[in-house]
Amino acid sequence: MQSILLIGAGRSTYSLVEYLKKHASIEDWRVTIADQSYELAQEKAGNHPRMEAMQFDVNDEISRVAAISKADLVISMLPAHMHISVASDCIALGKHMVTASYISAEMKALDQRAKDAGVVLINEIGVDPGIDHLSAMKILDEIKAKGGEMKLFESFTGGLIAPESDNNPWHYKFTWNPRNVVLAGSGGAVKFKQEGNYKYIPYHHLFRRTEIIEVDGFGKFEGYANRDSLNYREVYGLDEIPTIYRGTLRRPGFCRAWDVFVKLGMTDDSYRLEDCEDKSYRDFTNLFLAYNPNDSVELKLMHYLNIPQDSEVMDKLKWLGIFSDAKIGLHKPTPAEVLQKILQDKWKLEKEDKDMIVMYHKFGYKLAGELHMIESSMVTIGRNSKDTAMARTVGLPVAIASRHILNGNIKTPGVQIPITKEIYEPMLEELAANEIVFNEKKIAYQGY
Amino acid sequence: MQSILLIGAGRSTYSLVEYLKKHASIEDWRVTIADQSYELAQEKAGNHPRMEAMQFDVNDEISRVAAISKADLVISMLPAHMHISVASDCIALGKHMVTASYISAEMKALDQRAKDAGVVLINEIGVDPGIDHLSAMKILDEIKAKGGEMKLFESFTGGLIAPESDNNPWHYKFTWNPRNVVLAGSGGAVKFKQEGNYKYIPYHHLFRRTEIIEVDGFGKFEGYANRDSLNYREVYGLDEIPTIYRGTLRRPGFCRAWDVFVKLGMTDDSYRLEDCEDKSYRDFTNLFLAYNPNDSVELKLMHYLNIPQDSEVMDKLKWLGIFSDAKIGLHKPTPAEVLQKILQDKWKLEKEDKDMIVMYHKFGYKLAGELHMIESSMVTIGRNSKDTAMARTVGLPVAIASRHILNGNIKTPGVQIPITKEIYEPMLEELAANEIVFNEKKIAYQGY
Repeated sequence: MQSILLIGAGRSTYSLVEYLKKHASIEDWRVTIADQSYELAQEKAGNHPRMEAMQFDVNDEISRVAAISKADLVISMLPAHMHISVASDCIALGKHMVTASYISAEMKALDQRAKDAGVVLINEIGVDPGIDHLSAMKILDEIKAKGGEMKLFESFTGGLIAPESDNNPWHYKFTWNPRNVVLAGSGGAVKFKQEGNYKYIPYHHLFRRTEIIEVDGFGKFEGYANRDSLNYREVYGLDEIPTIYRGTLRRPGFCRAWDVFVKLGMTDDSYRLEDCEDKSYRDFTNLFLAYNPNDSVELKLMHYLNIPQDSEVMDKLKWLGIFSDAKIGLHKPTPAEVLQKILQDKWKLEKEDKDMIVMYHKFGYKLAGELHMIESSMVTIGRNSKDTAMARTVGLPVAIASRHILNGNIKTPGVQIPITKEIYEPMLEELAANEIVFNEKKIAYQGY
Repeated sequence: MQSILLIGAGRSTYSLVEYLKKHASIEDWRVTIADQSYELAQEKAGNHPRMEAMQFDVNDEISRVAAISKADLVISMLPAHMHISVASDCIALGKHMVTASYISAEMKALDQRAKDAGVVLINEIGVDPGIDHLSAMKILDEIKAKGGEMKLFESFTGGLIAPESDNNPWHYKFTWNPRNVVLAGSGGAVKFKQEGNYKYIPYHHLFRRTEIIEVDGFGKFEGYANRDSLNYREVYGLDEIPTIYRGTLRRPGFCRAWDVFVKLGMTDDSYRLEDCEDKSYRDFTNLFLAYNPNDSVELKLMHYLNIPQDSEVMDKLKWLGIFSDAKIGLHKPTPAEVLQKILQDKWKLEKEDKDMIVMYHKFGYKLAGELHMIESSMVTIGRNSKDTAMARTVGLPVAIASRHILNGNIKTPGVQIPITKEIYEPMLEELAANEIVFNEKKIAYQGY
C-alpha cells in the first residue's frame, strides 16, 4: 500500500480528489487530506474508506514532518510561497512531491538536493502552467525530430465562461481567483519577440495590443500578452526563435473595455483610498476624472478616454454599474479592491453556470527550405459548479502525474517542470481520455 | 570662533560655499569642506584662509565622529539616504545640523533625542523642499492671523532654462539631475484634492492633466501634479482644506510631448533591454511599437498615439533624434537609461546658458463671508554655469539657516522642517536681498 498526503483542500481540488478516490482501491493507496480547516478536509474525504482528513498547519514543523514522513508522495495545493518548507522536508525524508505552482527560485535551488535524494519534484503541472507545457513540448519535440527549425511559437490560454452560460455583454464571469483577474498584467512591462524584434508593451497599453485567434466550433477570441514571453525561450529550448508570444484569452471586445479600468487607474493596488466607505460606485469612478461641478461622470469619462457615446464599451461599463449609486462599503480599500467588488457583483458564476478552458498554440517552422505551421487547440467545458473545467484542468494533471510517479513511470529525480517525453506522453494520453483533448492541424504559414 | 563642517562638495554647493566664504571672517567661522574626493573639497575651499579641505568617508565611523566632534554645526549635502549616521552622531555630540533633503521616517524618529540634546536639526531647507515651505507658511500664517479660513492651496516649482538661453522646441534643458527628470512622477498614482473631492491620476495620464499658470513678465507655464499633495495637509496645518495641489512647472507643450515617452514605455526603469548596444535610437523607439516589415517607425508612432503629422509634438520628437540612426551604445540599459542618453545629447546646458527657478503659490480663503485669493510668485535666473539659480536656491537657504543657528536666532531644538516664523521670517528677508524675491498680490478668486 502507498500513501498520498494532499495538503490544501480548496476549491481547485475537486477533480483531483475525485481522481484519487476513483483510483485508490485499484492502486492500493491510502490518502490523507490535510487542510488548515479540518471541516473542509473532512468534507473532501467524505466516507471514502481509503481517505482520512487531518487538520494541518504548514508552519507547525513537528506535525508537518510527522505527516510527510508517513507519506510516499506529497501533493501540495498550498499557495505558491508556502511550498518551500514542504519541499525541503520531502527531500530530507525521501518523498516525491507534486505542485501546480510556478517554480520559484527557491524551489529551483533545491534541485541538486532532490537529485541526490532520488526525489521526483514536479512543479507547474496544472493547466497554465502545466497542460500548456505538455501539449507544446510534444509538438516541439516532433518538429525537432523531423529536423525542423522553429520560427514561431505562440501560445494562449483562457479561463472563460462556456457558450451556454455566456449571458452578459463582457462574455466573461469569474471562474477563478477574481483578484488575479483584476491585477492581470500589472506590475511591469510585457516582453516578447516578433520576427527577431524585441517588443515591449507598458501595462497601460497592454489591453489595446491584442491578437485575434479562432478556434473551430468556438468562434473568435482575443489574446493579450502575458508578462514575460522571453523566459520561455530557455524553458522550451527555443533560444534562437525569432517569434515568441504567450498570452491570455478573452472574448473579443473584453480587452478594449477592460482598458478603460487600466487607463483610469482603477486596477492600481499600490495605495489606499481615503473616506470612501460611504461613497458610491459612481463616486469611485469620479475619483479618476477631472473635477467639474456640472458635467456628468459619464460624459467626463467618454471625453477623457475618447469613447464614442454609442460604443459597446459604454454598454459594458454601464451594465457593470460603475456609474451607479451602490455603496462601496469597504474601509480604506485600494482602487483594485473596489473594482473587484464591483465586478464580483456582476461576474458571479451562478450555480448552473459552466466554465470553459481554451488553450491554443501555433508553431511555425522551416523544414527543407519550406515554412510550415501547426495549430493545436483544446477546449474543455465544466460539468457543473463543482466539477469545473478549471478544477479538472488543474487537478487532473496533478493527480495523473502523482499516479505515474507512484507507479514508477515518471522516475527522473530532481526539481522539474513537465517538459520531458517521460512525463508528457503518458499524461497527454490520459488527459485525452478525460475530455482534455488537443486538436492538431496543419495550416497555411502566417508570419508578421 | 565657531566651526562648520560641510559634508559633500558637489555641484549644488557653489553658492553655499560662496556664502560661507563671504561670511567667515565677519562671523568668525572656520569651515571644513569634507568630501570623498579630496581634490573636489580642495577646489571648493580654494585658498580661503578660513577654509580647509578634508577627505571624508561617511562609512568610516571613527573619522566621521572625529570630524563632527570638532564642529559646532554640520551641513550635510550628501544624498538623502546617507544623512542618518551623521544626524545620529550630531545628536550624540550635541552639534546642530542642516540638510536640504526630504525628511525621512528614520530622520523623524530622531526628534526626541535631538530635543533632549538641545540640537537644532533642520531638513528640507533647499528650494523645493525649502523655499516653498518658507514662502507658503508666511502667507498661511498671515491668513490665519486675520481669521481667514483656507479654501485652496496650490503650489508649483520648476527648474527651467532662462528665456535668454531658451533655444529649443522643448523650451527645456537639464539644469539638474537628468535621471530625476526622466523618472519624474513614475512609481505610483498622483493624489490631490479639489473642492473637497479626492482625485487620483495614474502615471500614464499624469502629463495630460496639466494646469496653465502665468507669471508676470515671464509668460505661461504648465504644471503637472506631484506624487502626493495630500501629505502637505498635515505639514502645513491644512487638514480640512478642500483643494490642495502641488505640481512641477514646464513651458507649455512640454508635457504633451513628454507624454509620448510615458505612453510608449520609454521611461520604464524596472527592466533591462536585451541586445540593444549596437542598435539605433530609431530601433529603440521601434521596440515599443507593433511589428510591421514595411511601415515607418514615424507613422506607426503617430498612428499608435493618435498624433497628427503636423503637430508640434512630432517636431519635438524629431528634433530630439528618437528616429535617428545614432547608436545606443549602452550595455543592457533600462528604457529610462536610453531615453536619458538621447535627452542628454540635446538638452545639455551649454557653458553660456543660464537656468531659471520659478515658484508659484495660490492661496484661496474665506474671510467675513467673502472669498479672497493671493498669488505669490518668485523667479530667479542663474548668473552663469556655476552660479546657477538652482545652486543659489538650494545653497543659500542652507547657508542662511546655518548662520542663524550659529547666531542663536534659530534655536528651537528637534528634528524639523522650516515652517515656523522663527525660521521663515529672517530667512525670507535675507533671501530677498539675494535676488530670491516673492511678489505677492491679491487676485480675483478662482475656484473650480
